[in-house]
Amino acid sequence: MKRVRLRVAYDGTNYSGWQIQPNGRTIEGELDQALTALTGENIHVIGASRTDAGVHALGNVAVFDTEMRMPGEKYCFALNTRLPEDIVVQASDEVAVDWHPRHQDCRKTYEYRVQRSRFANPQTRRYTHLVYGSLDVAAMREAAAFLVGTHDFTSFCSVQTPVEDKVRTIYSLEVLEEGELLILRVCGNGFLYNMVRIIAGTLLQVGSGLIKAESIPEILEAKDRTRAGATAPAKGLTLCEVCYDQEV
Amino acid sequence: MKRVRLRVAYDGTNYSGWQIQPNGRTIEGELDQALTALTGENIHVIGASRTDAGVHALGNVAVFDTEMRMPGEKYCFALNTRLPEDIVVQASDEVAVDWHPRHQDCRKTYEYRVQRSRFANPQTRRYTHLVYGSLDVAAMREAAAFLVGTHDFTSFCSVQTPVEDKVRTIYSLEVLEEGELLILRVCGNGFLYNMVRIIAGTLLQVGSGLIKAESIPEILEAKDRTRAGATAPAKGLTLCEVCYDQEV
Repeated sequence: MKRVRLRVAYDGTNYSGWQIQPNGRTIEGELDQALTALTGENIHVIGASRTDAGVHALGNVAVFDTEMRMPGEKYCFALNTRLPEDIVVQASDEVAVDWHPRHQDCRKTYEYRVQRSRFANPQTRRYTHLVYGSLDVAAMREAAAFLVGTHDFTSFCSVQTPVEDKVRTIYSLEVLEEGELLILRVCGNGFLYNMVRIIAGTLLQVGSGLIKAESIPEILEAKDRTRAGATAPAKGLTLCEVCYDQEV
Repeated sequence: MKRVRLRVAYDGTNYSGWQIQPNGRTIEGELDQALTALTGENIHVIGASRTDAGVHALGNVAVFDTEMRMPGEKYCFALNTRLPEDIVVQASDEVAVDWHPRHQDCRKTYEYRVQRSRFANPQTRRYTHLVYGSLDVAAMREAAAFLVGTHDFTSFCSVQTPVEDKVRTIYSLEVLEEGELLILRVCGNGFLYNMVRIIAGTLLQVGSGLIKAESIPEILEAKDRTRAGATAPAKGLTLCEVCYDQEV
């Protein structure tokens, strides 16, 4: 038996998220189906990030086990001919049989993209959240700086978050401008349920003057979801990469 | 009666081009239908660029005449609620009743986008042409420089091009790199049928060593379509903007 790792990109628009659901197509479901057809075995992938419905990825990571003898780096070719066009395996390799994508130190990078215009751009409409009205980027950067570091992010995750320990480390949180696009790029050692979307929603409310940048430390301190801003829409979010510190 | 001008963006993936066809949905057809429903009049728009099937636009221009009293700048709002999601009117204004989008001096800017990777990026797959294998960007820039200026572009347009006069002026032709993207950005006073796609296809063949950069002057001189490179696929092409020198 060997364990194969996949780097998976997808347009999440038409999926009910990563994780298999009783109803609705999922990324995990499509991968399982393509791998099961390819190998003739009953395959279940394990993903690094179980992204929500409508969230995109350029480099999510998944592993599966197989008895098949095909070299690990060939799976991307074999899978891409079997997957729908909006899911693309960018690379594949063999890893140690005990390598698990969630039981490793890693750095995840997400981008939340905001289109600052009155009307959508048809080429980016699926991957951006449209915001019309001026945003105070300097205030957003000031607010973002308070979130960098190791904090209890209870105020910045869904009340449905199942895990007990809500302490996470954000290594960087940049607010980048590229023409009409405003990109919130965040890198951390792990993110709680809805955490990036709540950070994005909060920074947007700082940008529009509804939340003061200097109130972020109190919001963190309160450990109360109701104190932070709204959850920004899923379609603006893309998981860019998952980097493992100890490579295999 | 007044004449209203529209700036129109669209994802051309699901359309048979701009111009109304006996079969297939077109951008012109969708605009006519939305405007006819809005005004109760029988409206036909006139477009600046009749883009091909699968070609995209961020700023094509169209005009129509109406008896309706709504201010010109309100049409974009009224139309966007009636148009499919992949066609978005970015702006509208009233122009002189004799203003015609094709009978004016203008500068058109197109981008041809190439994704340089083994596999597609699901977020850009509809708007880029995938090329795997190294491209000699310096040679492409050298070739591009020969195309700038006023030339007879017979070698760089479809043999079906109906117009007699094939002399056009290219003001600039840049080869830009943005990570995995290679962008050919061309600005000119008008383009012949398939001209940007043939320029893109030729530059890509220069990049992969199949055509020598220094042979471009001879190819222009030959006035023979068979001497230039292949026509690059439609989906990589976007009409970025149409600028009129004399604004209304």
